[in-house]
Amino acid sequence: MTDSQSPRAKLIDGNAFSAALRDEIATRVHELRDLHHVVPGLAVVLVGEDPASQVYVRNKHKRTLETGMNSFEHKLPADTPESHLLTLIEGLNDDPEVHGILVQLPLPRHINAQKVIEAIRPDKDVDGFHPWNVGMLASGGIGLIPCTPLGSMMLLRDTLGSLSGLKAVVIGRSNIVGKPMAHLLIRESCTVTVAHSRTKDLAAEVRAADIVVAAVGQPEMVKGDWIKPGATVIDVGINRITLPDGKTKLVGDVKFDEAVQVAGAITPVPGGVGPMTIACLLRNTLTACARLHNLDIPEAHPWA
Amino acid sequence: MTDSQSPRAKLIDGNAFSAALRDEIATRVHELRDLHHVVPGLAVVLVGEDPASQVYVRNKHKRTLETGMNSFEHKLPADTPESHLLTLIEGLNDDPEVHGILVQLPLPRHINAQKVIEAIRPDKDVDGFHPWNVGMLASGGIGLIPCTPLGSMMLLRDTLGSLSGLKAVVIGRSNIVGKPMAHLLIRESCTVTVAHSRTKDLAAEVRAADIVVAAVGQPEMVKGDWIKPGATVIDVGINRITLPDGKTKLVGDVKFDEAVQVAGAITPVPGGVGPMTIACLLRNTLTACARLHNLDIPEAHPWA
Ligand SMILES: NC(=O)c1ccc[n+]([C@@H]2O[C@H](COP(=O)([O-])OP(=O)(O)OC[C@H]3O[C@@H](n4cnc5c(N)ncnc54)[C@H](OP(=O)(O)O)[C@@H]3O)[C@@H](O)[C@H]2O)c1
Ligand SMILES: NC(=O)c1ccc[n+]([C@@H]2O[C@H](COP(=O)([O-])OP(=O)(O)OC[C@H]3O[C@@H](n4cnc5c(N)ncnc54)[C@H](OP(=O)(O)O)[C@@H]3O)[C@@H](O)[C@H]2O)c1
Repeated sequence: MTDSQSPRAKLIDGNAFSAALRDEIATRVHELRDLHHVVPGLAVVLVGEDPASQVYVRNKHKRTLETGMNSFEHKLPADTPESHLLTLIEGLNDDPEVHGILVQLPLPRHINAQKVIEAIRPDKDVDGFHPWNVGMLASGGIGLIPCTPLGSMMLLRDTLGSLSGLKAVVIGRSNIVGKPMAHLLIRESCTVTVAHSRTKDLAAEVRAADIVVAAVGQPEMVKGDWIKPGATVIDVGINRITLPDGKTKLVGDVKFDEAVQVAGAITPVPGGVGPMTIACLLRNTLTACARLHNLDIPEAHPWA
Repeated sequence: MTDSQSPRAKLIDGNAFSAALRDEIATRVHELRDLHHVVPGLAVVLVGEDPASQVYVRNKHKRTLETGMNSFEHKLPADTPESHLLTLIEGLNDDPEVHGILVQLPLPRHINAQKVIEAIRPDKDVDGFHPWNVGMLASGGIGLIPCTPLGSMMLLRDTLGSLSGLKAVVIGRSNIVGKPMAHLLIRESCTVTVAHSRTKDLAAEVRAADIVVAAVGQPEMVKGDWIKPGATVIDVGINRITLPDGKTKLVGDVKFDEAVQVAGAITPVPGGVGPMTIACLLRNTLTACARLHNLDIPEAHPWA
């Protein structure tokens, strides 16, 4: 901590950034409609009644409509056979009104999630989880990029400008966050280290990094004295913890009160990476729509 | 260097390892033929007369036949239209005698290499360059793995056993070597750093690593005093240099004479990674054949 105890780090405001991005997307959606008579459409499929998933799907629906896009919700009972889900996806693949397809994860255990992901047309796979999109990201081609890493990268680029030559550590190697984040950072010419639960000296890896992306799912695991002074910290973690008084609270994977004294810039939780995910989902739907219609419109945040 | 100047490092013998692997493959090929009446077939397509490519293709042909597989060579003139090449690939995709398809790179400039790669059926793509295979490797699924990184990983596993928790640096981020190598190391639970031409302090990155994979294409760039004592060094580089007397010589990306004094184990050039590439191509062809025929045979080096 500094002597003064006053926070040094710039707060990276994901709420403001994502609101501006959604506004930009809404503008493009209206242009598309007015100039090309095309309305982007996002289909969201929810199987079962998982309460967290229901909240996510409701938010996606609301945000999608706000931009002027069409939102198609498909809510299926928890015991839906896998074959029914696959048939629904086939229909959405062929539906010209649908430009983005998202199947809310996790799926009930009797359904093979990987099979479902692979059933989605890659050019409508707005989650970016289909092997084809994973491959395009890994090999530097043009596909659809997973939303949370994409949003994290937008915040990094907005904060730092060029990332070339910076040392970045990604803590976590999941297919949803850690690995695609590493690809995006390599593409931006960072020297990238991927750390995970088998990493021997995580504190030392973090101390060497100009950019720290924490995607671990361990509340406040990354301590302030692990952070290199002036580093940029992107906290992807969303963990609900119970306080001594029994109330609950959302915290990230980084001990914010400590890190904010050392870092150059840091995302808070909530209000950092969190709101970027839906904004990037809408951005991917717009992108998919433009590509499916061969329309050469300027992309929202074209660098990614 | 050590006081005695005697080499400390174990030499990792890629010639011996690849010969043993090819023997193992030949045994499986004969079992396949005898038990299942299936003969694996590899089709190699060469466009133009690039002398290095001609040598590679000749070696592949010879090694393929040695294992008892079928080898189908397709040599096309340098001015072959892209559409002809794509039609040939379609035919090979459908040919039940062909289980592996390799288009020798580089292709003449009028042909879009990425389009050609994407035209190959992923389950016959024994180079592992199709986006689907890249995605399967990146996301931990089962696909076909690029040959040079696969061979490098076999040597690492043979030398070190488990790699879990070791710190690895990969110098180079190409789609052919650097990036797939990084994926394999992440899968083996190394803490992996990807370095490249924008990396600021490459020597420091290398000094911290238990495993160094150099895939740069810069003769003898990695110096001995960059290597952590006892580290394992995999030198993927193949560079032809001209000596003062006008003769030429193959060297790696690592200054071997220096590094051999410091490392725990090191691949020589030639005779290290080089011969592994063809052996892994044959291994991938065998694997593809078994999968295409739904035959559950033990894989040669099943861990990868
Ligand atoms: N919209 C959003 O903001 C958003 C979206 C997605 C996820 N998230 C949040 O991001 C976090 C990560 O999500 P995820 O889906 O990537 O999680 P995940 O699939 O559980 O992956 C967690 C990763 O962290 C690693 N890890 C676990 N404990 C560790 C430790 N003690 N030290 C170092 N590494 C450790 C794991 O290593 P191993 O691979 O070795 O097990 C794994 O690679 C969660 O808090 C999640 O809620 C937020
Ligand atoms: N069978 C085999 O053994 C086999 C197979 C394939 C390749 N190779 C050999 O392996 C080497 C690499 O092949 P490749 O296809 O991966 O080459 P490549 O596509 O040219 O990639 C070279 C990589 O090295 C990086 N690099 C270049 N100069 C550097 C420097 N001074 N410091 C740090 N990084 C630097 C580049 O960084 P940027 O991305 O920033 O430009 C790039 O990522 C070559 O010598 C090749 O002949 C051998």
